[in-house]
Amino acid sequence: MTAPWITYRPELKVLDCTIRDGGLVNDHAFSDDFVRAVYQACVASGVDYMEIGYKSSKKQFSRERFGPWKFCDEDDIRRIVGDNATGLKLAVMADAGKSDWQTDILPKRDSVLDLIRVAFYAHQVSEAREMILDAHEKGYDVSANLMAVSTVKEQEIDQVLEVLAETPASVIVVVDSYGSMYAEQVEILVKKYLDFGRSTGKQVGMHAHNNQQLAFANTIEAIIHGANRVDATMSGLGRGAGNCPMELLIGFLRNPKFRIRPIYEVIQNHLLPLSRQVEWGPFVQYMITGQLNEHPRSAIQARAGDKRDAYLEFYDKLVSDY
Amino acid sequence: MTAPWITYRPELKVLDCTIRDGGLVNDHAFSDDFVRAVYQACVASGVDYMEIGYKSSKKQFSRERFGPWKFCDEDDIRRIVGDNATGLKLAVMADAGKSDWQTDILPKRDSVLDLIRVAFYAHQVSEAREMILDAHEKGYDVSANLMAVSTVKEQEIDQVLEVLAETPASVIVVVDSYGSMYAEQVEILVKKYLDFGRSTGKQVGMHAHNNQQLAFANTIEAIIHGANRVDATMSGLGRGAGNCPMELLIGFLRNPKFRIRPIYEVIQNHLLPLSRQVEWGPFVQYMITGQLNEHPRSAIQARAGDKRDAYLEFYDKLVSDY
Repeated sequence: MTAPWITYRPELKVLDCTIRDGGLVNDHAFSDDFVRAVYQACVASGVDYMEIGYKSSKKQFSRERFGPWKFCDEDDIRRIVGDNATGLKLAVMADAGKSDWQTDILPKRDSVLDLIRVAFYAHQVSEAREMILDAHEKGYDVSANLMAVSTVKEQEIDQVLEVLAETPASVIVVVDSYGSMYAEQVEILVKKYLDFGRSTGKQVGMHAHNNQQLAFANTIEAIIHGANRVDATMSGLGRGAGNCPMELLIGFLRNPKFRIRPIYEVIQNHLLPLSRQVEWGPFVQYMITGQLNEHPRSAIQARAGDKRDAYLEFYDKLVSDY
Repeated sequence: MTAPWITYRPELKVLDCTIRDGGLVNDHAFSDDFVRAVYQACVASGVDYMEIGYKSSKKQFSRERFGPWKFCDEDDIRRIVGDNATGLKLAVMADAGKSDWQTDILPKRDSVLDLIRVAFYAHQVSEAREMILDAHEKGYDVSANLMAVSTVKEQEIDQVLEVLAETPASVIVVVDSYGSMYAEQVEILVKKYLDFGRSTGKQVGMHAHNNQQLAFANTIEAIIHGANRVDATMSGLGRGAGNCPMELLIGFLRNPKFRIRPIYEVIQNHLLPLSRQVEWGPFVQYMITGQLNEHPRSAIQARAGDKRDAYLEFYDKLVSDY
């Protein structure tokens, strides 16, 4: 039997979403030093893409309440990356229903960004389609990220994928928002996304959450079944249980362009200090929402209050709500 | 496509090794209350086996230095379980080279134990064979646990399995002592162990460590490929990075005999308080030894000292030692 894990695919690209998904933990209020350290670590470690935040509506969300990485103004990005004269490509995420994408996403010639990731729930697929077309016309590479797919019925997933297949998005991403998926479900969805994307040459991505300590395993599983765009974050920083840890993913990949030391460096100097101010990771409440295939909001709320250690009360409440 | 993860196999048995592997974190000095709570949670949750500690040599190890669960005297066990009038079976581990098994393992009729797990490194297979024969003759069910198999060459694994196949051990366990294995390696080894064990009707087990946050995923992988004996611990308690968390495993299994609430209860009341005194889990140093397929002793040492946050220095030292 061959050992496929020691080989590598040159077409496999890694996206760092430390600042983007991590922003959900601290209201996007990272210091410039922190964002710069992650950026430099991405460049030094050979990561392909860095997602630097959201393009959120300033009409819906206050700049006083949220840090700059919820809005990603061009000036804020350039303060960190200059003209980004590196091999690293830059991405932002725009949420359907929460973004003034018509005006806030600039024409590509006026931006240092390379990739727009359109995030949406199944019922928002029509706006997502418009967003994809808009970003593509403005000159960007575009990714389509159907969120919380673990709660969408098979038939509706197919309908969404039919719509996406006809768009100019170059990537469609399997997004396990609730961290509830097992390897078999990842396999089924990656294969399905590949099937729908094949006729228009789309790549498939994987974005995993760590509620059941399966984010890294599910990312490997997606790679095995043909996903060539995978998301990870330094120290697994991300909402609730966090994401696939970049340091584990880079340790797994065998493409010699990847280097792991810069990631351990930014973890030691920046993520570890952050972990003393805010928490993320597979705590019991997140395991429970993951097992129940629920949004982590109840778990986030439970861990923020003075009943953070009352696991049983949390479990009993969620199960009795059924 | 069918969804195999919602089915279950009645022949799949779960072993709790919270006290046994967890004892490596606190020198086996659990209070009776703690051990009793784990025992009662095992009974209440439908777990099949509880491994309550080691049968270690009192000539080699001092009773002053180590707690009772390193030795598992019959009186100590019975103080917790009485005559164990439950469906839960009780196990201990005996290490080749570290156990006076000839005298310290009593005839089955004088013991409340059901299963002896013989742990050994490849070069100790001859003593392991004697230990298996001895325990079997004394009336016990016996498991053979070849440790650190990720460092053993293919040919030597085959030789060990040939020896084990001829013994009366009813189980042979794939043991990922260093937490270095990926799913593909688990698949290869589980299939190999099944092949060697088939002619004498042996079951195959899985004991995973969590250095790369793959303990639960690798345990699922082993189950998929036919392992019917799987190890886990409450909160993942165990040496270094810890083990497969029982609360995740029970959440995954679909046999209605399993109940998860008693596990969350013991986690809240006993494991959480313990986590404030001793640490376990996939900290960076354990990730690094896992990635390098090394014994975690250097990582354990690093985390015990005042350089616990010096990830880079640790990484540089291990890589330069190559």
